[in-house]
Amino acid sequence: MSAELIATSATSSQQAVIKRDAHLVQPVQDQVAEEVPIAMVYNGISYAVMLATPQDFEDFAVGFSLAEGIIHGLDEVYGIEVVRHDKGIEVHIALATERFHLLKERRRNLAGKTGCGLCGAESLDQAMRLPAQLAPQPVTSVLPPVASVAIDAAHHRIRELQPLQLLTGATHACAWVAPDGSICLVREDVGRHNALDKLIGARLRQAIQTPGFVLTTSRASYEMVQKVAAAGVAMLVAVSAPTGLAIRIAQQCGMTLIGFARNQQFVIYSGAERVQYKE
Amino acid sequence: MSAELIATSATSSQQAVIKRDAHLVQPVQDQVAEEVPIAMVYNGISYAVMLATPQDFEDFAVGFSLAEGIIHGLDEVYGIEVVRHDKGIEVHIALATERFHLLKERRRNLAGKTGCGLCGAESLDQAMRLPAQLAPQPVTSVLPPVASVAIDAAHHRIRELQPLQLLTGATHACAWVAPDGSICLVREDVGRHNALDKLIGARLRQAIQTPGFVLTTSRASYEMVQKVAAAGVAMLVAVSAPTGLAIRIAQQCGMTLIGFARNQQFVIYSGAERVQYKE
Repeated sequence: MSAELIATSATSSQQAVIKRDAHLVQPVQDQVAEEVPIAMVYNGISYAVMLATPQDFEDFAVGFSLAEGIIHGLDEVYGIEVVRHDKGIEVHIALATERFHLLKERRRNLAGKTGCGLCGAESLDQAMRLPAQLAPQPVTSVLPPVASVAIDAAHHRIRELQPLQLLTGATHACAWVAPDGSICLVREDVGRHNALDKLIGARLRQAIQTPGFVLTTSRASYEMVQKVAAAGVAMLVAVSAPTGLAIRIAQQCGMTLIGFARNQQFVIYSGAERVQYKE
Repeated sequence: MSAELIATSATSSQQAVIKRDAHLVQPVQDQVAEEVPIAMVYNGISYAVMLATPQDFEDFAVGFSLAEGIIHGLDEVYGIEVVRHDKGIEVHIALATERFHLLKERRRNLAGKTGCGLCGAESLDQAMRLPAQLAPQPVTSVLPPVASVAIDAAHHRIRELQPLQLLTGATHACAWVAPDGSICLVREDVGRHNALDKLIGARLRQAIQTPGFVLTTSRASYEMVQKVAAAGVAMLVAVSAPTGLAIRIAQQCGMTLIGFARNQQFVIYSGAERVQYKE
């Protein structure tokens, strides 16, 4: 892949396309979402490359580092610098020395794959030897009861808060939602895991104290639940389906997991006690 | 993650859930899709772990190996054996010696992440040093013109050919479609990349000679286009959006890339000459 294919400077670009509907075929200009290789570099050492939407880099760095168990809090990040190259973007994260030593120790040593959800683990043994801080742990954060109508409202509201999705139709969003259904924060990305990392990072960086839950416009895979658990969040609401593994991990963590949240409907897979139906 | 969370024996499982719609809240039994760690092991050496739907392992192994550039054809695979463990499934692939030597040489050496699309590359430099066989190359396969109504028909037909999606609402599908819109093969998976690998592998293993194109129920990311290109296929039709990077790679390969193919509409991003509108 040559560098001229990579567009690092914008989240979307214009393309000449041919649009066809049942009545008409015509050339038009279309906006498409960009995906860019983004490398996370800790104290000068490159750790992983994700293809992601080129925005909210600092949020991404913090949320990713937290989800990976590389940091436990914002105070372990000494600085973040974004360096644009012609073939992608490097996000340089300066870590506290102790954290960096731990990172080097547990640095995993082989290739993962898109969609693997196992963070580059090479073998099943390795995949199962996840660091303790990534193992399912009881959710500790306090979340007041959430009314079912608040979930409906959040799903309704998030649509208008996704400028890139409205422009391109190609991106996922994750939102931090207060128990009354109001939306505090939204992050968008071509990748649902990236959108979640960015949301978690933004919430930490903005020191948002409002209790709440995560709403995602995507499905709830194992890794989405794991990232939410790593952030200590008590509830994940997905617009689409969860997997069986995601459900069992949520149950083990005591996390509320809701799927198919759309059109005034949803399905509760775990932690139903946090949802109220009085309307 | 403990082994008892992993369900390796079925593609879906029953869950007790609480279903809520605008009128009713009730406990029901639901079918959810399983995702299982599946390790690709070449000549005894573990290469990568994906979370995938536990079916069509041989198709997955062949398609994945082809997309990764590990093999160029089925004759380089001497055998495939599926070994079930309590913490996942190993797919053992016996490779021709020469191929295995090449694999060991170019074995990448650090962690990738879900959604990265860069196959575990650690740094931008590494990400850009993709093996020659994975670099965009001109599509060589011959595809007769495809009528726009054939694309409509394929999208209409694929719905009924996704048993796991109909059961769980959680999976993607990829199909091999003849130019007249008839569907030759379908593979389903919780991951779109896995579904594509399985389709490409199945087509090769079943020696399907019918010319055609790939239809995916998902978006068209960079990696989806790359996998289709690696299989020498001339056209990818996605039900949802492509990214800018995916479009530019398709254009460079001379591949036809179509997005938003649904409800008798679609958008052509590359290679419009292969589509006919005479209806």
